[in-house]
Amino acid sequence: MRQRNKPWAKQKLDDHPQYVISSPDSQKGSWSDYFGNDHPVHIEIGTGKGRFITGMAAQNPAINYIGIELAESVIVSALDRIIEQELPNVKLMNANAEDLRDFFEKGEVDRVYLNFSDPWPKKRHAKRRLTYKTFLSIYEDILPEHGEIHFKTDNQGLFEYSLTSFSEYGMLLNYVSLDLHNSDYEGNIMTEYEEKFSNKGSRIYRCEVQYR
Amino acid sequence: MRQRNKPWAKQKLDDHPQYVISSPDSQKGSWSDYFGNDHPVHIEIGTGKGRFITGMAAQNPAINYIGIELAESVIVSALDRIIEQELPNVKLMNANAEDLRDFFEKGEVDRVYLNFSDPWPKKRHAKRRLTYKTFLSIYEDILPEHGEIHFKTDNQGLFEYSLTSFSEYGMLLNYVSLDLHNSDYEGNIMTEYEEKFSNKGSRIYRCEVQYR
Ligand SMILES: C[S@@+](CC[C@H](N)C(=O)[O-])C[C@H]1O[C@@H](n2cnc3c(N)ncnc32)[C@H](O)[C@@H]1O
Ligand SMILES: C[S@@+](CC[C@H](N)C(=O)[O-])C[C@H]1O[C@@H](n2cnc3c(N)ncnc32)[C@H](O)[C@@H]1O
Repeated sequence: MRQRNKPWAKQKLDDHPQYVISSPDSQKGSWSDYFGNDHPVHIEIGTGKGRFITGMAAQNPAINYIGIELAESVIVSALDRIIEQELPNVKLMNANAEDLRDFFEKGEVDRVYLNFSDPWPKKRHAKRRLTYKTFLSIYEDILPEHGEIHFKTDNQGLFEYSLTSFSEYGMLLNYVSLDLHNSDYEGNIMTEYEEKFSNKGSRIYRCEVQYR
Repeated sequence: MRQRNKPWAKQKLDDHPQYVISSPDSQKGSWSDYFGNDHPVHIEIGTGKGRFITGMAAQNPAINYIGIELAESVIVSALDRIIEQELPNVKLMNANAEDLRDFFEKGEVDRVYLNFSDPWPKKRHAKRRLTYKTFLSIYEDILPEHGEIHFKTDNQGLFEYSLTSFSEYGMLLNYVSLDLHNSDYEGNIMTEYEEKFSNKGSRIYRCEVQYR
């Protein structure tokens, strides 16, 4: 996602501590206290402008959602949505997926969503893909036993790569759709990228994988 | 494949014992004697009219190929190709994949090819799909440790199903292409169905999986 220069973004995030988790490492081990309930916690990594995470939160009030996004200039748009919709069960975290172990104990996150992750098509950049083995190891360390990753993308190369990466890591492929918008999958919530690329005629790929 | 009534087909197969293996169970354990060399043996299950297996045999003279096909009325067309091309390293077997354990010892087959297998789209027919777990178990019993299956199809539903079936069986996905004809895969040999469906604009899916 192109990062426009928004010097006020950091300030705006700081001004909304009820929606933007200010020091995530201090919640480690006590997320149910933070949310004030024992509902499962689902996170989306690279949440962008937050269309998916807010849509999911509205659809599933008994699940707590955290949208994690690196870019301040992007996550502010997600904040605008949350302010507008006044959703109690979705929070934002301006952080890097590389640091997730600092924020969550094993089992504190019940599901990981990856949506339209940056493809990093060059082979020498494979390590940066959010489905590279080092990331799969990070997610494993915060999910429970047999925890799940739900992944969708329009990028054929990233999807092909990810299927083999999940397999090599020993994960179980529970579900795969090679054309989500023409499948019988119900309750799909579109992301910003999903809408943009499917409007251009791209197929959307989706899978659910599980640690064994 | 539609099976036309060809009463002469059985006779024609019997008339060419140099190309059509007449009693495959009697070769069990002695395929290198049969071929007169120690080259690896690759089989294609559901070989149809034999375009793939003869193309592979011409391309790879140091590999022995066996095209296995249930329908007499179809395999005779493969026989015609072999007679015409006089290829020494490709044979045909008019047999059912269900019976492969009767024909090969563990490790006598070095690779299994499945091309454009019948999709059996109805859920209650899943057991008939050549990538159903009972078939994966049969192939495992004739392949060596870490043996490979190479699979291609135009059928999206069968491909999706097969990826999950391979995964559930514990197999490793080494390679996947979601658009073979627009990929950098080299040396592809088309099957009859592949030509027909790609000419109609269908995408071709392909994967390589391995027993762990
Ligand atoms: C291509 S955008 C997709 C945004 C959104 N998921 C969608 O589908 O519309 C990918 C997003 O992931 C974010 N991102 C990339 N690497 C990240 C990381 N390591 N941790 C957190 N966010 C990351 C980027 O800043 C970008 O906003
Ligand atoms: C859709 S056709 C594809 C033929 C060829 N592979 C191609 O790509 O052009 C599938 C073939 O598999 C054969 N077949 C189906 N089940 C089989 C089985 N259990 N054992 C052997 N052959 C089988 C059918 O008779 C048919 O000729």
